[in-house]
Amino acid sequence: LFQLESEADALVNFQQYSSQLPPFYESSLQVLHTEILQQLTDLIRNHPSWSVTHLAVELGIRECFHHSRVISCANSTENEEGCTPLHLACRKGDGEILVELVQYCHAQMDVTDNKGETAFHYAVQGDNSQVLQLLGKNASAGLNQVNNQGLTPLHLACQLGKQEMVRVLLLCNARCNIMGPGGYPIHSAMKFSQKGCAEMIISMDSNQIHSKDPRYGASPLHWAKNAEMARMLLKRGCDVNSTSSTGNTALHVAVMRNRFDCVMALLTYGANAEARGEHGNTPLHLAMSKDNVEMVKALIVFGAEVDAPNDFGETPTSLASKISKLVTRRAFLTLLRTVGAEYHFSHFQGVPTEQGSASSHRPFFSLERAQAPPVSLNSLALQDLVHISRARKPAFILSSMRNETRTYDHLLCLDGGGVKGLVIIQLLIAIEKASGVATKDLFDWVAGTSTGGILALAILHSKSMAYMRGVYFRMKDEVFRGSRPYESGPLEEFLKREFGEHTKMTDVKKPKVMLTGTLSDRQPAELHLFRNYDAPETVREPRFNQNINLKPLTQPSDQLVWRAARSSGAAPTYFRPNGRFLDGGLLANNPTLDAMTEIHEYNQDMIRKGQGDKVKKLSIVVSLGTGKSPQVPVTCVDVFRPSNPWELAKTVFGAKELGKMVVDCCTDPDGRAVDRARAWCEMVDIQYFRLNPQLGTDIMLDEVSDTVLVNALWETEVYIYEHREEFRKLIQLLLSP
Amino acid sequence: LFQLESEADALVNFQQYSSQLPPFYESSLQVLHTEILQQLTDLIRNHPSWSVTHLAVELGIRECFHHSRVISCANSTENEEGCTPLHLACRKGDGEILVELVQYCHAQMDVTDNKGETAFHYAVQGDNSQVLQLLGKNASAGLNQVNNQGLTPLHLACQLGKQEMVRVLLLCNARCNIMGPGGYPIHSAMKFSQKGCAEMIISMDSNQIHSKDPRYGASPLHWAKNAEMARMLLKRGCDVNSTSSTGNTALHVAVMRNRFDCVMALLTYGANAEARGEHGNTPLHLAMSKDNVEMVKALIVFGAEVDAPNDFGETPTSLASKISKLVTRRAFLTLLRTVGAEYHFSHFQGVPTEQGSASSHRPFFSLERAQAPPVSLNSLALQDLVHISRARKPAFILSSMRNETRTYDHLLCLDGGGVKGLVIIQLLIAIEKASGVATKDLFDWVAGTSTGGILALAILHSKSMAYMRGVYFRMKDEVFRGSRPYESGPLEEFLKREFGEHTKMTDVKKPKVMLTGTLSDRQPAELHLFRNYDAPETVREPRFNQNINLKPLTQPSDQLVWRAARSSGAAPTYFRPNGRFLDGGLLANNPTLDAMTEIHEYNQDMIRKGQGDKVKKLSIVVSLGTGKSPQVPVTCVDVFRPSNPWELAKTVFGAKELGKMVVDCCTDPDGRAVDRARAWCEMVDIQYFRLNPQLGTDIMLDEVSDTVLVNALWETEVYIYEHREEFRKLIQLLLSP
Repeated sequence: LFQLESEADALVNFQQYSSQLPPFYESSLQVLHTEILQQLTDLIRNHPSWSVTHLAVELGIRECFHHSRVISCANSTENEEGCTPLHLACRKGDGEILVELVQYCHAQMDVTDNKGETAFHYAVQGDNSQVLQLLGKNASAGLNQVNNQGLTPLHLACQLGKQEMVRVLLLCNARCNIMGPGGYPIHSAMKFSQKGCAEMIISMDSNQIHSKDPRYGASPLHWAKNAEMARMLLKRGCDVNSTSSTGNTALHVAVMRNRFDCVMALLTYGANAEARGEHGNTPLHLAMSKDNVEMVKALIVFGAEVDAPNDFGETPTSLASKISKLVTRRAFLTLLRTVGAEYHFSHFQGVPTEQGSASSHRPFFSLERAQAPPVSLNSLALQDLVHISRARKPAFILSSMRNETRTYDHLLCLDGGGVKGLVIIQLLIAIEKASGVATKDLFDWVAGTSTGGILALAILHSKSMAYMRGVYFRMKDEVFRGSRPYESGPLEEFLKREFGEHTKMTDVKKPKVMLTGTLSDRQPAELHLFRNYDAPETVREPRFNQNINLKPLTQPSDQLVWRAARSSGAAPTYFRPNGRFLDGGLLANNPTLDAMTEIHEYNQDMIRKGQGDKVKKLSIVVSLGTGKSPQVPVTCVDVFRPSNPWELAKTVFGAKELGKMVVDCCTDPDGRAVDRARAWCEMVDIQYFRLNPQLGTDIMLDEVSDTVLVNALWETEVYIYEHREEFRKLIQLLLSP
Repeated sequence: LFQLESEADALVNFQQYSSQLPPFYESSLQVLHTEILQQLTDLIRNHPSWSVTHLAVELGIRECFHHSRVISCANSTENEEGCTPLHLACRKGDGEILVELVQYCHAQMDVTDNKGETAFHYAVQGDNSQVLQLLGKNASAGLNQVNNQGLTPLHLACQLGKQEMVRVLLLCNARCNIMGPGGYPIHSAMKFSQKGCAEMIISMDSNQIHSKDPRYGASPLHWAKNAEMARMLLKRGCDVNSTSSTGNTALHVAVMRNRFDCVMALLTYGANAEARGEHGNTPLHLAMSKDNVEMVKALIVFGAEVDAPNDFGETPTSLASKISKLVTRRAFLTLLRTVGAEYHFSHFQGVPTEQGSASSHRPFFSLERAQAPPVSLNSLALQDLVHISRARKPAFILSSMRNETRTYDHLLCLDGGGVKGLVIIQLLIAIEKASGVATKDLFDWVAGTSTGGILALAILHSKSMAYMRGVYFRMKDEVFRGSRPYESGPLEEFLKREFGEHTKMTDVKKPKVMLTGTLSDRQPAELHLFRNYDAPETVREPRFNQNINLKPLTQPSDQLVWRAARSSGAAPTYFRPNGRFLDGGLLANNPTLDAMTEIHEYNQDMIRKGQGDKVKKLSIVVSLGTGKSPQVPVTCVDVFRPSNPWELAKTVFGAKELGKMVVDCCTDPDGRAVDRARAWCEMVDIQYFRLNPQLGTDIMLDEVSDTVLVNALWETEVYIYEHREEFRKLIQLLLSP
């Protein structure tokens, strides 16, 4: 059974062995198997300090527990760990033996080992939750006891990621509000990114999502180490802007820890990018010390003020100019300048000052910066400083400012473009902030195609654009999953969630909204408008003489909002068609011309019906795009009869290029669509504004990379800044009676 | 050498044989071969009346012709045919023997055989034109002699289709103006549809194309039995409307003979469909007795008057109502009614009269029909009788009526659509006829895409639309030959022929013309307008920030007309792109919106340049289509990830349908393109006319069937009649100052 090198050792071992053996063969009905003997021998050698009861637990021989020697050692703690046989049974997860120990051997349940751990701690470390359950049923003494490290069994389970143990502990009424070294158990789960455990705690006690740890006053969200953990909490309704005792939000923490994914998750769930935390710092202040351009962009794009001073009067811009690393400093300053940040360049090396040497002695951060007009960089004119960032300053949105007595009508047109609808959102946010009025109240007509149609409905249903920005960032990951064509389910679920499953188009009447769709159950396909008002009647002859017996169309009052959105956005090859509808983008990716046509027909109809006095002239048309891709040269769109394999390859390539070209011609929302709309508007004295930022890269309708999308929004911000005069004029016109 | 059944016969034969043989063995240097002896024996048996000289010619033994017996029989005609050895030599085509006969044997060349045929007649029937040449060189006595049937050798050659013989005869100065039984030789060639012979005569004597046969006074064209023969003459410049002594044109003859292909060829080369021939009948009068609906349609479509009276006061309509075959009568009457023919239905059985029984006694054809307003069929209102057919009455086109002092500008827009451009032509012909003014002078701006672009250039270059109609019918067969994509050569040749190889866009300045093209060397593709004036400068920012180094565009003053037409009409998959240009139809198959945009930008530019006084307001926009295909239901445009082969098949089908749908959405010139243009025009008080007939079938851009195209034009005529009020209003507006 065992061999040893020295005889002395052998003798000692033999004595131990002989003293421990009797209970086992005495309680056994049969002769002991060699394997069990071998196990026993090994155990005795490895754990010489164990009592016979410890050995019996580990061997798992139930019969032994009626033997007097085993019973007598039931509460023995004389071993290295200081654990009882009960501890061992819990760790091993042997419920039957646990019962034997408690019922026959009268084992005590509140004993702690050398580390201060109770049987619950041991059970949590084991794999059998039923043992924990048994334990909880019989005793509650050690349930909430902290070990020497300050961890309750629940803390330990969270730390170890044992979701089922957490569940059982909570069922046994383990307390969630015992302070551990890092906070309550929920905070432990967050700290160790144990998603299942955190979810379990919250599902058992929903208040835990808001529980602040006593030490930092931080909510579980502050403790989130990655986007997945943060999203789990956010989806369950935690307060995204809750502050710790220092006044920092989770966003402050994520920025300090340089967690870009976390930052994005928080921002898309509505984290306030302008929140002032400890020392009055905004997240952007904190971001300045990180070498992360994308994070800075993300914060600014989501509304962070580049010129907000902290308690020391420092602005993010002034902090940027103090960064020691030259490359980073230059990058940040260029970045900030492109959206019109004011900053004192005197400390920015290599740029000559216009004010002479005097300015170089001005303090970096000055509380009187509002009074003293700062000097711009060479490339920026003085008026540049009346920058869009100012205009973006929250003000407040006067949602009730809708002017019913307005003399003229305003039309807003939103292009299609999938997830690039974010660009439209960013443009609308700028308009809303600058005007102080919600989009809904700035316009009398809103037309949209595909993603623009969804946004038109969001406007109609009074959803804030900042909210929609978050929604879009969140939605893309749900909707663009797998490969094209994507499952329609998630998109439809999303639309139902946002607009309601039973909401009808006519439920909200103002502004008048139209969504474009392509009726593809006929050849040639026809444009269909989903409206929240009755279609105007026209007097002209029908387009076709023959009636080919097509199904009648749903009337606005019966049309479900989510279904209209889905129909307008059924981009071929991305999603399957919704019934007979294909994406409106096929016929009107830029819906301006069709919206103007519709409004004209609507007004003509009103006049015919004797309601001409209600007709208002259109005075402003605002057409927003989803970003222009860069122009690229094309070499081959030739399609010809190939006479050899090389030519065949060229033809296949040509056919593909040609196909792309045809689709692009078909759906190009810029170019002629804009020229035509501009000419039309100019001819009838309508103020026409086309806003569509030039993007640096071609972004797909189904782009899911946060970085790529943040960059697109960044380029949108730069565009807004560069076109601030146009914006100013637009806002002035929109607000004039 | 020969065997016979009876000894008596054998003896007779042997005597003949022995009497004929000597010259052959006497003149031969060697022993005669058995084969020659056998030939000789056979000849003697088959032609017992032939002289030894005849035999020598047929055997082809030159040596014999120095033998006295052979020489003595040189002019022998004592045989069944009455032909000389010379005749035989000519038919056999043996030039050497011909020479022997003439030089050594003094054979006479002017002998005629029993049928009155000379050696020339015989030579023409042979296969060796060199013999004919030899003959012609030596003698001219029989060259123009007619045989007993009245045929000269040239007649005979034409009848037999011996093109080379015709050539040689003409080289020998054979006369073309000898009357044969059916006319001159050219008429014989036509009668027997011997294209090569007719071509040969015309190429040798170009006057022959106009030569009238003395009997009927008919030109060769009258004699053409099929389209190919007619086209041959027409391409060579014959007078398509030349009349025979009865006053009939070739078209009359073709109609009488019920030759539809001939009728089409004549009409497309400008035959006058209204020509009055014998008894004052027009071709349409004659067509009424033929059971051929297509021919009647073709004649009407090409301008035949349905109400023109002949010398007996009968109109085609009244003739139609007298046709005995009920089905044909009904078909014709319905046909004529749809384009507004007036007719007295009293004799049309089964239709109640409104005037009561009195009218049933009215004479069929009345010379006073202009005074007595005829009664219409039930389905037609009285004013229907002021029909478009009246308006089409030639009047005369006042080409110089262009009103430079017109207060307003007129715009004409022509859609793309390949050979369906014929529909536009038909619409323009109606407008020109009704207004009495050439299109060129009715409009200040003409915009066209693809086929519409070609027509815009035709208008610019003062080509009549009736001429262009013929051109289109002729062109299609040249251009749409083989399979897609078609060779560009014929199209380019055609364009160069019509517009000149070196003509520049700016060579003709009025009206202002623009053709759409798609610049496909960049992504996204851009619209390019080919103009005959300088492009307006615009003040807005360029569409793209970056410059991707594209080749500069050709300026109007350097732009070749034919190349602009070719670029606008490079319909992908039909033709290969022209350089970097694809068909304008990809971006503006209906060019109205872009034309209006262009005009607005042009006027703005003028105002900016201080020439605002020259700017005239647009008052009329006329948009002509190439015919609407019928609407058809579509079941499957779904594209999804297939999970089994059946689904895969569905997907492939769906992708194809989708592709078609995308292209059709892209290029649909009706639907929204029209709604948008109408709304735009109405908003700015421009009179907008959209004229586009509904066609019964989907006609391809490259349709070549005359019948299909005639039917499309027929439907156009019906459309014009049905919309006569709109046309009337349009013409009134176009002619108002």
